[in-house]
Amino acid sequence: VMDIERIKPGEWNSRAVGVENLVFLSGIVADDKSLPMKGQTEQVLAKIDGFLAEAGTDKTRLLSAAVYLADLSRKDEMNEAWVAWLDKADLPARAAVGVELTPGTLVEIMVCATR
Amino acid sequence: VMDIERIKPGEWNSRAVGVENLVFLSGIVADDKSLPMKGQTEQVLAKIDGFLAEAGTDKTRLLSAAVYLADLSRKDEMNEAWVAWLDKADLPARAAVGVELTPGTLVEIMVCATR
Amino acid sequence: VMDIERIKPGEWNSRAVGVENLVFLSGIVADDKSLPMKGQTEQVLAKIDGFLAEAGTDKTRLLSAAVYLADLSRKDEMNEAWVAWLDKADLPARAAVGVELTPGTLVEIMVCATR
Repeated sequence: VMDIERIKPGEWNSRAVGVENLVFLSGIVADDKSLPMKGQTEQVLAKIDGFLAEAGTDKTRLLSAAVYLADLSRKDEMNEAWVAWLDKADLPARAAVGVELTPGTLVEIMVCATR
Repeated sequence: VMDIERIKPGEWNSRAVGVENLVFLSGIVADDKSLPMKGQTEQVLAKIDGFLAEAGTDKTRLLSAAVYLADLSRKDEMNEAWVAWLDKADLPARAAVGVELTPGTLVEIMVCATR
Repeated sequence: VMDIERIKPGEWNSRAVGVENLVFLSGIVADDKSLPMKGQTEQVLAKIDGFLAEAGTDKTRLLSAAVYLADLSRKDEMNEAWVAWLDKADLPARAAVGVELTPGTLVEIMVCATR
């Protein structure tokens, strides 16, 4: 049985969970809900950098991402922040779909990575 | 090539799929659609317990969960059942978002675990 | 540190990402948006066959699938194509939910597999 590492447990989830060479992050949202789509995405990605670091990996080792958008018509703004963040050589598998998010939250991103 | 174990295959999916130390469950829904959000969530979590057991693991070894809600404004009711089910030390990575579900279904939960 | 294989990188994602024995595909959509639900699903599944092959695996080794539908009332049409594509012995874990997709896209499917 493999050891499970649970990082920053909150009320309902752990921000990151590591097992062997795999790392799973929770859906991450921006703290500042007054920001527009691009700004919220930048905050989300910065927080993801931090949780990946705590789990012993980084954004060059992403495997897969689910991007949840409150307003799919603003996907381009999310993508602006996304492509500024990730090198073309490091792109994970990804789906981006429109869902209902908590009021004020425009984007939520859930990734898994290897380490 | 690793062996894949497919548990309780139905018409469109297997309820659980195991490969080496990883277990993937299908999105699980309640059987009794007359129940409110909390009651449906309790049914879902009990069914997840059963499928995890068939795959040789349990809720203390969850890695990641996607919680799909038909009505995001009732997320707190889902969380009541969730926190009653899971010890704080065992929280997986999780995202909970609002989507369209089959009529009558209020919550659907899809998890992966290690064993 | 394990090697990551990134297949067909596009602007925002890699169509497939392989690491050790795991393969993650991006959310795949049909090219011909004029097709109805069943036809779009058939195109999606054919594209998935291709990306799985490039990653060194095939549809008999699927572990998990997320099916995103623009109109959940047409789930049966998607399932017609799905069951024609997959042998009963090879069904992955799966969830199918209704979300907002890019205009014209009726179905998007994201899978992971082993190889």
